[in-house]
Amino acid sequence: MDKDSTGQGSDAAASPKGYIEEGGYDRDTNYIGDRIVADPGAVRALPTEGPARVGRVGGGLAEGAEAWPVEAGRYRLVAARACPWANRAIIVRRLLGLEDAISLGLPGPVHDERSWTFDLDEGGTDPVLGTHWLQENYVERFPDYPRGITVPALVDVPTGGVVTNDYPQITLDFSTEWTAFHRDGAPQLIPDAGPERDEMFEVIERVFTEVNNGVYRCGFAGEQESYGEAYDRLWTAMDWLEERLTTRRFLMGATITEADVRLFTTLARFDPVYHGHFKANRQKLAEMPALWAYARDLFQTPGFGDTIDFDQIKHHYYEVHRDVNPTGIVPKGPDLNGWMSAHRREELGGRPFGDGTAPGPVREGEAVDPEHTPLR
Amino acid sequence: MDKDSTGQGSDAAASPKGYIEEGGYDRDTNYIGDRIVADPGAVRALPTEGPARVGRVGGGLAEGAEAWPVEAGRYRLVAARACPWANRAIIVRRLLGLEDAISLGLPGPVHDERSWTFDLDEGGTDPVLGTHWLQENYVERFPDYPRGITVPALVDVPTGGVVTNDYPQITLDFSTEWTAFHRDGAPQLIPDAGPERDEMFEVIERVFTEVNNGVYRCGFAGEQESYGEAYDRLWTAMDWLEERLTTRRFLMGATITEADVRLFTTLARFDPVYHGHFKANRQKLAEMPALWAYARDLFQTPGFGDTIDFDQIKHHYYEVHRDVNPTGIVPKGPDLNGWMSAHRREELGGRPFGDGTAPGPVREGEAVDPEHTPLR
Repeated sequence: MDKDSTGQGSDAAASPKGYIEEGGYDRDTNYIGDRIVADPGAVRALPTEGPARVGRVGGGLAEGAEAWPVEAGRYRLVAARACPWANRAIIVRRLLGLEDAISLGLPGPVHDERSWTFDLDEGGTDPVLGTHWLQENYVERFPDYPRGITVPALVDVPTGGVVTNDYPQITLDFSTEWTAFHRDGAPQLIPDAGPERDEMFEVIERVFTEVNNGVYRCGFAGEQESYGEAYDRLWTAMDWLEERLTTRRFLMGATITEADVRLFTTLARFDPVYHGHFKANRQKLAEMPALWAYARDLFQTPGFGDTIDFDQIKHHYYEVHRDVNPTGIVPKGPDLNGWMSAHRREELGGRPFGDGTAPGPVREGEAVDPEHTPLR
Repeated sequence: MDKDSTGQGSDAAASPKGYIEEGGYDRDTNYIGDRIVADPGAVRALPTEGPARVGRVGGGLAEGAEAWPVEAGRYRLVAARACPWANRAIIVRRLLGLEDAISLGLPGPVHDERSWTFDLDEGGTDPVLGTHWLQENYVERFPDYPRGITVPALVDVPTGGVVTNDYPQITLDFSTEWTAFHRDGAPQLIPDAGPERDEMFEVIERVFTEVNNGVYRCGFAGEQESYGEAYDRLWTAMDWLEERLTTRRFLMGATITEADVRLFTTLARFDPVYHGHFKANRQKLAEMPALWAYARDLFQTPGFGDTIDFDQIKHHYYEVHRDVNPTGIVPKGPDLNGWMSAHRREELGGRPFGDGTAPGPVREGEAVDPEHTPLR
C-alpha cells in the first residue's frame, strides 16, 4: 500500500529506483475509490477530490467513483498476510464473521516486478480468480491502471476486476455496510455517531500519520535529516500511546474498536521488522511496558494473533526492499516466545468484544502455517 | 581489523567490492607480528607461521618479525574509538596507567578509501605523527604494505613507521612487557601461569571466534545459509555467557581480567550496532539479564565506560558498510539511558581490581565527547 518514487507501493512491486526517497518518504494516498455498500442508490457523490486517508463512515463517493452492492459470495478479498494494511481487512473480516460472505485470496509474501502473485496456491494461480499476478485483476478493470498494485483489494469475482483497493475504507464498510452478513455476536468496532466516534477517528488519524505510516517514513528516508524528523515524530506518538494505554485496556477504553485493529498490525511488525530494517529503534516494542502488554493482549485474542504470519512478514520486507537490505537476507530473530506470555491487562477490566463475543476457530484452509508463527 | 574480500578490513578502508562475502565471512588474521617487549634480546623466533589469533603471553616472535624495546614516550597508540579491537587497547592502557608511557592518537570514526584518517585533529593531521592518513605510517614502514590499514596500530614516533597492528598481542604485551611503567595499583589482567590462565585463554578463544568475530560473520554473510549458521553459533555462545555470568561477577570470577576487556567492547556495540545492522537480533543485550547487568557493571567501572563513544561507534558501522546500509543513515536509537541503571552485580561479591585499585580520572584531552555518550 506504500508508494515509492515511481508511484508503486512498498507492498506493491519494486521499481528499479527502489523504495528510498531523497528528502523523505511521501505516501501516495490515491486509491480506487469505489465502495461496496448496502444501498448503492443512496450513496451520493462527495464534493471532495478523493477518499479521506483514514476512511469515512457513511459518507459518500469520491468523484468518478462507483457504488457496488453488498452481495454474499460475489467479492473476493485479496490480502497478503505480510502487508499491515491488508492484515487489517483479514482481522475485521474474521471478527465480524464475514468469511462466508467474502472469500479470501492470499498472495505470497514477495512480489515480483509486476505485482503480488498467487505463488502459494497450487499451480501458482488463485483458485477462484484463476490469475497468477494480482495485476491481471487490476488491468481487467482498468486496462491502463497507472498506480501501484496493492493489497488489500476487493475483486468482483464474476468479472475478475478489482472493485477497490481503498484500504482505510474497506474495513469501515465491512463494519457498517455488510451488517446483513455479520455473524451473531459480531463486535461493534465503530462506536455510534457522537463524541466517542469522533475521538476514535482522531486517534486513528494520529496513529496513521505518526505510527502506521511513520515507520515507513523512518525506513524510506533518503537523508539523515528526514530520517531524524520521522523518528522523532514516531517516538513522540509511541510515548503518547504508551501513556494512553497505561490506564486504558484498549485505545478507546474497555472494548476493542477499529482503532485497535489499525494499531495492532503495525505493532505486530515492530520488533520483527521496523525496529531494525526501518531503524525505528529507540526501544523495541518489548521494552514499552503498556504497549507491549496491549499488543500481547490483542495477539492472544481470537481474530488477531491467529492472522499473523511472522515468517511471511519478515520475508516480505527484508526480501523486497533491496535498496534497504541489499542481500535480501532475512534475520532469524527476534525470539517470538514473549508474544504468548501473560500480559495481565485483565486487571484494567474491560469487555474486549463489548456486547458481542469472540469469533470461533479459524476457518479450514485459512490458518497460518504453524511453523511460521509457532505460538498457538 | 576485519578484512573484506580484498583483504581490507571492515575497520579498514572500504573496497569497491564491499564487506559482504558470498558464502560467508572469513577474517584475515595476518598482522604485522612485531612486538614491543621488555627484553628484545630474550625473545626467540617461533617456529609457527604467524601470530596466534588470541595472542600469547611470553612466547616469541613469528618468522620474520622483530622485537622492539619497551621505552616510555617512544610509541604512539593509534586507536579509533569506533573500533572494538582498538577499544581494547584504549581500555587496557588506561587500566594499567600507561598514559604517560604511550601516547594516544585518535582517528575519526569514518575512513576514506585510503585509510583511517586523523580528521578530528586540528588541520586534519595527528599532532605527534603529522600524518593525515594512517596509511602513511604503514607505508613509512612497509612501502608495499599489502593488507588492510587497521587500528589499533603502535607507531614508532621517531621514524613514523608502524611497529605492529597485531591487536590480540598488543594488550597482552601492555600487561606483561610494560610492567615497568604500570601505575601503582594497576590490576593484574592476566592470571599467573597455571590452570586459571589456561582457562582464561580458552574463554578468550571462544569469545573471539563466536562473539567478537561472530557478529561480523552474521553481518557480512552474503547468503541466508551462512548467515543462519553464524547466528546460531553466536547465540549458542551468548547463552553460554549468560549462564556463566549468572553465578560469576566477571568471566573468570571475582576479578576483572583481559577476557572481560575483550567481551566488553563487543557488548558495548551490541544494541547500538550488531543487533540491527548485523542482524544479530534474537534478543537485545538489554534482554539478556546476566549479560546486560555484567555489561553495565563494567561500563560503570572506571576505564571501561569512559572509553566508549556511542556516537562514533554508530557512525562508523552505519556509514562505512554501504553494502549493508546503502543510505549511510545512522539510527538515532537505541536509548542509552539503561547503561547507567543499577546492575546489582555487587551482590555476587568480587573485587573488580583484585589487589589493585581503580584508575583515576581520564586524562585531559582524552575524554569522550559528553554529547556522544551522555551518560557520565
